[in-house]
Amino acid sequence: MLDYQSIINAIYQDAIKAKDKGIVASYIPELAHINSDNFGIHLRTSKGETFGVGDFEKPFSIQSISKVLALSKAMSLIGEDIWKRIDVEPSGNPFNYLSLIEVENGIPRNPFINAGAIVIADILVSNLQNPKEDFLKYIQALTGDDSIIYNKDVANSEKITGFKNYATANLLKSFSNLNNSVDVVLDFYFHQCALEMTCSQLSKAFYLFVNQGKCLQNKVHITNQQVKRINALMLTCGFYDEAGEFAFEVGLPGKSGVGGGIVALLPEKFVITVWSPGLNKKGNSRLGMLALEQFTTKTKLSIF
Amino acid sequence: MLDYQSIINAIYQDAIKAKDKGIVASYIPELAHINSDNFGIHLRTSKGETFGVGDFEKPFSIQSISKVLALSKAMSLIGEDIWKRIDVEPSGNPFNYLSLIEVENGIPRNPFINAGAIVIADILVSNLQNPKEDFLKYIQALTGDDSIIYNKDVANSEKITGFKNYATANLLKSFSNLNNSVDVVLDFYFHQCALEMTCSQLSKAFYLFVNQGKCLQNKVHITNQQVKRINALMLTCGFYDEAGEFAFEVGLPGKSGVGGGIVALLPEKFVITVWSPGLNKKGNSRLGMLALEQFTTKTKLSIF
Amino acid sequence: MLDYQSIINAIYQDAIKAKDKGIVASYIPELAHINSDNFGIHLRTSKGETFGVGDFEKPFSIQSISKVLALSKAMSLIGEDIWKRIDVEPSGNPFNYLSLIEVENGIPRNPFINAGAIVIADILVSNLQNPKEDFLKYIQALTGDDSIIYNKDVANSEKITGFKNYATANLLKSFSNLNNSVDVVLDFYFHQCALEMTCSQLSKAFYLFVNQGKCLQNKVHITNQQVKRINALMLTCGFYDEAGEFAFEVGLPGKSGVGGGIVALLPEKFVITVWSPGLNKKGNSRLGMLALEQFTTKTKLSIF
Amino acid sequence: MLDYQSIINAIYQDAIKAKDKGIVASYIPELAHINSDNFGIHLRTSKGETFGVGDFEKPFSIQSISKVLALSKAMSLIGEDIWKRIDVEPSGNPFNYLSLIEVENGIPRNPFINAGAIVIADILVSNLQNPKEDFLKYIQALTGDDSIIYNKDVANSEKITGFKNYATANLLKSFSNLNNSVDVVLDFYFHQCALEMTCSQLSKAFYLFVNQGKCLQNKVHITNQQVKRINALMLTCGFYDEAGEFAFEVGLPGKSGVGGGIVALLPEKFVITVWSPGLNKKGNSRLGMLALEQFTTKTKLSIF
Repeated sequence: MLDYQSIINAIYQDAIKAKDKGIVASYIPELAHINSDNFGIHLRTSKGETFGVGDFEKPFSIQSISKVLALSKAMSLIGEDIWKRIDVEPSGNPFNYLSLIEVENGIPRNPFINAGAIVIADILVSNLQNPKEDFLKYIQALTGDDSIIYNKDVANSEKITGFKNYATANLLKSFSNLNNSVDVVLDFYFHQCALEMTCSQLSKAFYLFVNQGKCLQNKVHITNQQVKRINALMLTCGFYDEAGEFAFEVGLPGKSGVGGGIVALLPEKFVITVWSPGLNKKGNSRLGMLALEQFTTKTKLSIF
Repeated sequence: MLDYQSIINAIYQDAIKAKDKGIVASYIPELAHINSDNFGIHLRTSKGETFGVGDFEKPFSIQSISKVLALSKAMSLIGEDIWKRIDVEPSGNPFNYLSLIEVENGIPRNPFINAGAIVIADILVSNLQNPKEDFLKYIQALTGDDSIIYNKDVANSEKITGFKNYATANLLKSFSNLNNSVDVVLDFYFHQCALEMTCSQLSKAFYLFVNQGKCLQNKVHITNQQVKRINALMLTCGFYDEAGEFAFEVGLPGKSGVGGGIVALLPEKFVITVWSPGLNKKGNSRLGMLALEQFTTKTKLSIF
Repeated sequence: MLDYQSIINAIYQDAIKAKDKGIVASYIPELAHINSDNFGIHLRTSKGETFGVGDFEKPFSIQSISKVLALSKAMSLIGEDIWKRIDVEPSGNPFNYLSLIEVENGIPRNPFINAGAIVIADILVSNLQNPKEDFLKYIQALTGDDSIIYNKDVANSEKITGFKNYATANLLKSFSNLNNSVDVVLDFYFHQCALEMTCSQLSKAFYLFVNQGKCLQNKVHITNQQVKRINALMLTCGFYDEAGEFAFEVGLPGKSGVGGGIVALLPEKFVITVWSPGLNKKGNSRLGMLALEQFTTKTKLSIF
Repeated sequence: MLDYQSIINAIYQDAIKAKDKGIVASYIPELAHINSDNFGIHLRTSKGETFGVGDFEKPFSIQSISKVLALSKAMSLIGEDIWKRIDVEPSGNPFNYLSLIEVENGIPRNPFINAGAIVIADILVSNLQNPKEDFLKYIQALTGDDSIIYNKDVANSEKITGFKNYATANLLKSFSNLNNSVDVVLDFYFHQCALEMTCSQLSKAFYLFVNQGKCLQNKVHITNQQVKRINALMLTCGFYDEAGEFAFEVGLPGKSGVGGGIVALLPEKFVITVWSPGLNKKGNSRLGMLALEQFTTKTKLSIF
């Protein structure tokens, strides 16, 4: 049997010695002063075993990782109607390329590029009574952890500097693919991205994707079919224009965020969360990618 | 000698009988209820003769025609520094294509596509003390006519519905090619476009472009070199993706607006303004284009 | 235990009753007269069991399916050097979009879009002594079946009409990403695509991808790492701009061809080949897609 | 009255002292060894006066300048039917951008980008009995000069290296906008571009565009309307993505070639030809552009 603890310990030892830790994202000013020495791994199996090393109990800004959780909430609310407004194909382009929206008449390529995630945010704003409060409660329920919060400073930092997101939302609006006002949708979206979670909390939150749609509290949130859809989307679209590389190097569905977090999972087996704030040139955690690559190499556990 | 009055009378008689008058722009709600039967022509020679027929004293929304006047004001304020932030090449694309801005790193192709005009608006906001008041005074001074006003309803109508312009301005901002806030710049821009002028007032305002930069009141606003630059830009970029067709069919520098106005001119000879609210598929006044085509065919006056 | 034979029999019964069988590809004239009533399925497990139904012993033009076999041959010849000339990311675009090549300076997005496959063909032409003969022998060796041939009429049909492929190859050449002459490379490429194989032969040929790189004759052709790379590429890029949909609906790595064939596989478990000549709007076999979707739904066997 | 000879003499004196003479085109190998010190100017008025200085009697490869002559021949053969297959709008893009052809379904933006010129070549191949011979005779007739020839080495040099043109022609063919075979059309096109002419011969050849369609021998080749069309196209599309800049800096319709030649003209007044082999970054003759700019500044003769 695999000794997960030893494996992640070894990866941790390598990681903290790495010379090139990547570059911490600076386009969101509030994220710029995170120490790039942070490094944590946490693993949770579908059977409930957990393993952690390093800074796995330290909260960080989950950023785009939240897009997966927002998608699962939207799916539970309106089901397959989502796909009338968003496509499911990889974009093959950097994460905030507006051109595609124009070429495709306002239909974002998938729910994980910013344009698609903003449409998901619009759906949540339309279908939740108190969008920000209700979404936070959803995350707290998935994890059974009421301490999770939005970092208001990070949300505000993006509100002040997120011009491309404003451009994107307005463009979607011009194509009638945004039902609420740009300001309301982006206020929600920036909060969603500004969720602060630890590696172990993220492993809990993503547990439903390795447990047929049931969360830790054994509540069914989405169908097994919807789990499959989300896992397929993570594999093909979870890493901007490095999705193909990740599919090969790691071979797991996953989602990264510019805060340096990556969650990946082997369906029906385990969730693994890594955090290392420095990014590579494509905007994914540099050491996080390497750690997951080592993990699947050492464990020989991947979908391929 | 040419009998301008008879020529424009004949064009007018043809135009009012036209069956296909084009379609009045509806994307700005306030413009949608203009009667498409309006039709006016006004001509002013560089020597001061004037000729008019039809609704040439009826004010209409000049919209994009204002971009030429905004450019001339910006040139008088900061001169050739403009070209550090905007290019001078035809775009060969519909008038609000955001893709180009991304491909070209935030530098609009020319000052007459919306992106370029928004950068010009930013320049005016930075360099005028009371931007809206001062720009209105500039127009009033060019024409010697204090009755010219902004139509607040039209400006407001665009503010509520102009999502593509908000997208464009935010995208420019994300490339650091907008110094003021998006809201302030677009408030100015929507007012500029919402100027209401008659054909005869427009012929007066554009007089400086056939009079070496001197307006009717004999004040020098821009250099002869700058006049040449503006006229060249009108010829190559004045008609969205119908610029080439207009250059051939009419053969004059000119600028159209979605309000149905077109101003064209023969350098050092005359300015001619036509107004007919119905647009063709490319967004230019349908009968206005035909009228100018007939005019240059009948008078044999064109730059080619 | 799963009764594969009953499952594929049931799928077959449904398929032959389908009213909409898609449209047989007509852009390659030689393919246009294939009867759309053909339908076959063949499955081979990694342990060697085989199951077939319908026209699974009838040869058809494998077309783009050959790209996977060409890639595996190229990998065995020059290894990871391939990735200096081709990327591994999904294209998110129809299968013969030249624009991408220009934007990306002659580096095709992945080895399964035509541009990438043509570079692979160039590699094989450079590295095989008698390219066409040697590649055919490779296919015959993988399957242990000397009866497999190129259909010269199909190859010739493409040579006469494949203008987009000529455009693509010349564009690659202009970016110095083609070492041999356009004509020689395309002659090879058109032959490769014109391989005629049956469902059962394809299941044999793809056996190495579920058997750690070893073919039926127990010869190692590629490393386990290379198998993983190829399977990841099939999942993310195997179905033109329907890759995301296939990843979700079927959940298996696979590759389709305009001849109506699809090969899919579950790593280390089985290869399944389906043939139905009628295509859907995205260029993939209409009934083939549905059959595989049913198969993974009924068996609950997918990578997600 | 203007003393043209003194003016061009002064320009010549400046030019030969220039330190930065641009870079001689190297992508056509045969052009690479032309001495960048060559410099000639020739001017011919509509009344028949001529003025020359420097190397104005030395033949050079006219390259893209030939596109204007090919267009005028095609117009005289099939008239306005040309515009069913080619548009008349500026491209706003570098001169051999294939993407545009895909986006616009095989219709080139204008007859002066390579794609458009290749369609014109196709028209000539279809409508001339002996295309290469007849086109050469046309040029000889326009100039009254039988000594003009194709440079076979240059034509051959392009045939061997012109991969982008092969890509373009094949792409046009795939959109059914090429009636003859790619090889036949490009053989004609490469010869057309490989015409060797002197500045004074070019001034003669372009005389019909300042003389209402009549050539030096007083034969009418095209209508006055067609002259206007061609002049408008030269102004808006004659200089790749430097058309806007040229329209402003020089203010004359014109056409450049990578051989370093530029022909420009003031309708009904004069033709001026400049030759200097070194190119600027946009692919136009560096000193040629400057010379024409000086010429229109000194003479104050431009269309604006």
